[in-house]
Amino acid sequence: MKTIRNLKQMSGFSRQIKHRAKSLGLVPTMGALHAGHLGLIRKARKENDFVVVSIFVNPVQFGPKEDLKNYPRNLKHDEKLCKKAGVDAVFYPDAADMYPMGYKTYVEVEGFSDCLCGKSRPGHFKGVTTVVTKLFNILQPDTAYFGQKDAQQALIIKKMVADLNIPVKVKVMPTLREKDGLAMSSRNVHLNKQERKDALGLHQSLKLARTLFKKGVRDSNKVISVMKGLIVKKQTAKIDYVCVMDSQTLKPVKKIKNKCLVGLAVRVGKTRLIDNIILG
Amino acid sequence: MKTIRNLKQMSGFSRQIKHRAKSLGLVPTMGALHAGHLGLIRKARKENDFVVVSIFVNPVQFGPKEDLKNYPRNLKHDEKLCKKAGVDAVFYPDAADMYPMGYKTYVEVEGFSDCLCGKSRPGHFKGVTTVVTKLFNILQPDTAYFGQKDAQQALIIKKMVADLNIPVKVKVMPTLREKDGLAMSSRNVHLNKQERKDALGLHQSLKLARTLFKKGVRDSNKVISVMKGLIVKKQTAKIDYVCVMDSQTLKPVKKIKNKCLVGLAVRVGKTRLIDNIILG
Repeated sequence: MKTIRNLKQMSGFSRQIKHRAKSLGLVPTMGALHAGHLGLIRKARKENDFVVVSIFVNPVQFGPKEDLKNYPRNLKHDEKLCKKAGVDAVFYPDAADMYPMGYKTYVEVEGFSDCLCGKSRPGHFKGVTTVVTKLFNILQPDTAYFGQKDAQQALIIKKMVADLNIPVKVKVMPTLREKDGLAMSSRNVHLNKQERKDALGLHQSLKLARTLFKKGVRDSNKVISVMKGLIVKKQTAKIDYVCVMDSQTLKPVKKIKNKCLVGLAVRVGKTRLIDNIILG
Repeated sequence: MKTIRNLKQMSGFSRQIKHRAKSLGLVPTMGALHAGHLGLIRKARKENDFVVVSIFVNPVQFGPKEDLKNYPRNLKHDEKLCKKAGVDAVFYPDAADMYPMGYKTYVEVEGFSDCLCGKSRPGHFKGVTTVVTKLFNILQPDTAYFGQKDAQQALIIKKMVADLNIPVKVKVMPTLREKDGLAMSSRNVHLNKQERKDALGLHQSLKLARTLFKKGVRDSNKVISVMKGLIVKKQTAKIDYVCVMDSQTLKPVKKIKNKCLVGLAVRVGKTRLIDNIILG
């Protein structure tokens, strides 16, 4: 397995794959890999001749008061996991190469980005769509793999790819969870014992939403208030948002129908966690 | 020569070229082809195995009060010229396919776009960069050819390609002119006899700028005021802007050095014309 830092070298590597008419799968990550990422890598490994995992903590998608500095980084550990998973190359570019002095160009999916995580993290998705466009252009993968945990991100990237006619297939894989239900996330390492316990509130409240839906409850506000009621009981948890929305447009819905997305963001201690399920 | 309207068919055509390891040159145009375009096509023909000319009057780069409706269109004539010039395919997509209902994604080079033509045509360059990204993604050309007449456009596209790591080489070719010096433009067909005469003011004022520069004048304001003095004498001309700027950053300069760009936009009758030269 290679670890490639240089952008031109990375393009060259993937161009060679293209020239040999082989397929390339890309798993874009911010590192601190966990079983969720490994699920994506496994899928990519199965479906492609070559697999590249990009590891880049993208400064452009972090707000000035967010956890860019504290975001967990562990290249050695990530490399080990990638090698074991049969990855062909890790792409680990430098921020100064990705955004050299005088950088000016951004890609934005308008309208989608100013609700939910976009609302509490202004500019976040513009950073995501920009870096994903760059990675797609550098690597020109046939398929790229994302996790459903970041539901809004996945939807926005799919929309961008369709709108801009980007020749990459985007696959979104189900959220992987710890045994007790907590969605896997690189940020989970920040949780202390009490917070780890309280963090279960996200999944518990989503399960509660599913139960209510199965019982015939269709009123979003009812579902949201029951979910919030569960979470506020957790000592270290502070709700950012709980929302029931159309799974395609991400517009909030009043009446729950099939294929609604229930999403939430909760700050547990200092760590902001997200999770979601699709109903019906 | 093929004329292709369907986006998937166009991608398929260019994918086949790639698979055969042949090179593809793209000349993106809005149609109403003139000798300036043909110069770009000739260059593309010389340098590539295959040449595609795209013809698309991009609605997104026109303001609500601009000449989208009146922009000259003449596909039959354009096809004839392309065929004669040895073009392999004309790509002539439908606006409803390029921007289907619910279209949301835009590419923007920030900062560059709010001066000069960007200032008098807000949103114009965002439309240009978005459609060029789409064309590059659909066609994946090795090289794309643009004219120096649209100096700001050429610079912004080069910046976008560099920033987003787009794997396309951008070549900017010198402005072609009528015998009397008027820069070739599809919009020239709108000029009546008097306006055609007055339109010469653009080139005359640029020649004057060059003469002053050769005589040692380095004060931008001096040059600009002499240029403006010449243009205001033309009966049907109304100045939009005259500017001396750094040819890389497009920032206005007070003292003229080598490689400064002198650019202007003038409304002649109802037709807005642009032109520019590089000094030194």
